[in-house]
Amino acid sequence: MSDSICIALDAMGGDFGPRVIIPASVDALKRHPQLTLKLVGQKSVLSPVLEKSLGKHPAAAIADRITIVNADNIIANDEKPSYALRKRGDSSMFRAISLVAEGQAQACVSAGNTGALMALGRFSLKMLPGIDRPAIITAIPSAQGVSYMLDLGANVDCSAEHLLQFAVMGSVMTRAVEGIEQPRIGLLNVGEEENKGNEQVKLASRLIREHGGLNYQGFVEGDDIFTGKVDVVVCDGFVGNIALKSSEGVARLIGSQMRSSFSASLLRRFTAWLAAPILGEIRSHIDPARRNGASLLGLQGIVVKSHGAANSTCFGFAIDQAVAEVSMDLPGSINRELESQIN
Amino acid sequence: MSDSICIALDAMGGDFGPRVIIPASVDALKRHPQLTLKLVGQKSVLSPVLEKSLGKHPAAAIADRITIVNADNIIANDEKPSYALRKRGDSSMFRAISLVAEGQAQACVSAGNTGALMALGRFSLKMLPGIDRPAIITAIPSAQGVSYMLDLGANVDCSAEHLLQFAVMGSVMTRAVEGIEQPRIGLLNVGEEENKGNEQVKLASRLIREHGGLNYQGFVEGDDIFTGKVDVVVCDGFVGNIALKSSEGVARLIGSQMRSSFSASLLRRFTAWLAAPILGEIRSHIDPARRNGASLLGLQGIVVKSHGAANSTCFGFAIDQAVAEVSMDLPGSINRELESQIN
Repeated sequence: MSDSICIALDAMGGDFGPRVIIPASVDALKRHPQLTLKLVGQKSVLSPVLEKSLGKHPAAAIADRITIVNADNIIANDEKPSYALRKRGDSSMFRAISLVAEGQAQACVSAGNTGALMALGRFSLKMLPGIDRPAIITAIPSAQGVSYMLDLGANVDCSAEHLLQFAVMGSVMTRAVEGIEQPRIGLLNVGEEENKGNEQVKLASRLIREHGGLNYQGFVEGDDIFTGKVDVVVCDGFVGNIALKSSEGVARLIGSQMRSSFSASLLRRFTAWLAAPILGEIRSHIDPARRNGASLLGLQGIVVKSHGAANSTCFGFAIDQAVAEVSMDLPGSINRELESQIN
Repeated sequence: MSDSICIALDAMGGDFGPRVIIPASVDALKRHPQLTLKLVGQKSVLSPVLEKSLGKHPAAAIADRITIVNADNIIANDEKPSYALRKRGDSSMFRAISLVAEGQAQACVSAGNTGALMALGRFSLKMLPGIDRPAIITAIPSAQGVSYMLDLGANVDCSAEHLLQFAVMGSVMTRAVEGIEQPRIGLLNVGEEENKGNEQVKLASRLIREHGGLNYQGFVEGDDIFTGKVDVVVCDGFVGNIALKSSEGVARLIGSQMRSSFSASLLRRFTAWLAAPILGEIRSHIDPARRNGASLLGLQGIVVKSHGAANSTCFGFAIDQAVAEVSMDLPGSINRELESQIN
């Protein structure tokens, strides 16, 4: 028997809130028999949606493992993190994170405001020793399988030291999750040559190289993110967010071009019918929604960020990610690695 | 009859040098009867390749319009721009740019070191009044047709004022090339809300808004590059280079996944045969090589940068781009616009 795992969900976060999160929760409970969930949000909103979702399923085994924790406020997507920190003590996001801080849940999942999630996570859970800021990491499809990339939007003004910390955390996560003994680390830049790039990456490259203990491969370029040339791509949150969203944008453009090109004639529609399973295979490898669930690394607790626009299936992937991180005690692994590198 | 146009080519630049550039030149002369070309590089290397390429074609009409200008040195891809400026006075790149500065050519095309091209361009051709640095701009495929994006790698440490200058130049170029009266300008950021982003983009957004005269739409995100939400995407060269290369990387990943998925069985190979023209159509819309030819804006002369890995067809697109910019007197248009905005 596996140990029981309790996860707190910010049930009001994201573009669709409870409409997506509650059905995803019920499905996750069916997938993970050891899982219990705490839905955090406005009880009056959540109760009817939960009742409706449970109504479709054999009651007790599921219903007993999901509870509502009331929180009256919601943090909006355009709210400043500093404001969220000051004014939203009773928000669903803050309460969900607090449950982790208080030991009442082992992880928290939110599809809400990324900046607020980082600020509240840092405030409630505290940073691991030696880490200044949380970083957002996610798996990226590559020609070799997957790579990991961080930071993806939490830190828009990073120092070279922060990039070094990201490299250490990314290396540990990739070792823990993928079982790669010495993950290859690359630093994202506009060229591979030593003299290329801005002052921040040049200094960071020197720090990562001097740090030792990391399998550092030097600079990598934007297209290397998807070749599998390295296992971990390190960058600041500004560049990482834009690189990832640009890639999603071009993938969507190719998808929409395909739909219109494939429907232009009867023969083409027949071809599309034949090609559908092939294109489906490719989509399932490339589609970022398939790996929805980015982790906030560097906190003394597990926080998983779902895409704001995630549908129920995708939000379910984020819950699965939280379950996996609890099972492997990810913050503990990072902490042990940091300590071993100091000693 | 159209006026004659003379273009200087850095015949030694790029990954393949004369092997690609000379055949591309001969083809360009066939496409453009008003064109003459000056091939700049080591005469002993260029002469035999040129003779061989000309040998296949009816001689005089083409051969009379292409001449070799000797330059003994080559600027390597990993050379620092400052070094290129100091030591490579007799390089093919420097000589090609000098021909423009001396009025012996109306434009220059190079597939060589981008940083060196910018430094030498700035040194020989000088900047337009009111512009501090050249920016690299290129057309990007979008759901609406094309957008333009700048800067793409020339400027890795930009100020907010530089981003404002890029916005002005991008707007003028898009009006000149695409005939859009008031091109919509977007500033690339990690979110659309006013409070998102680093200090540089927040300040730049204020400057562009206050400047007036531009159809400024505010912040856009990475995926907006390809939706056609704006006509011009403005960003610093570090972010722009990485966003563009990431997009090329994911497009290549999708392409390689398709090739392997479509060849997995006999039925799939038949499907691939049916789908080939459709996929070709999509590729020709998306493929960055189709629009090879990025322009250095802000100089008092025309410099077009070809991708270093361009093949002969793609280098030809870069020559076509230079021909088009000469025809529309792009630097003159930008200068007039800058003057009208001051007055």
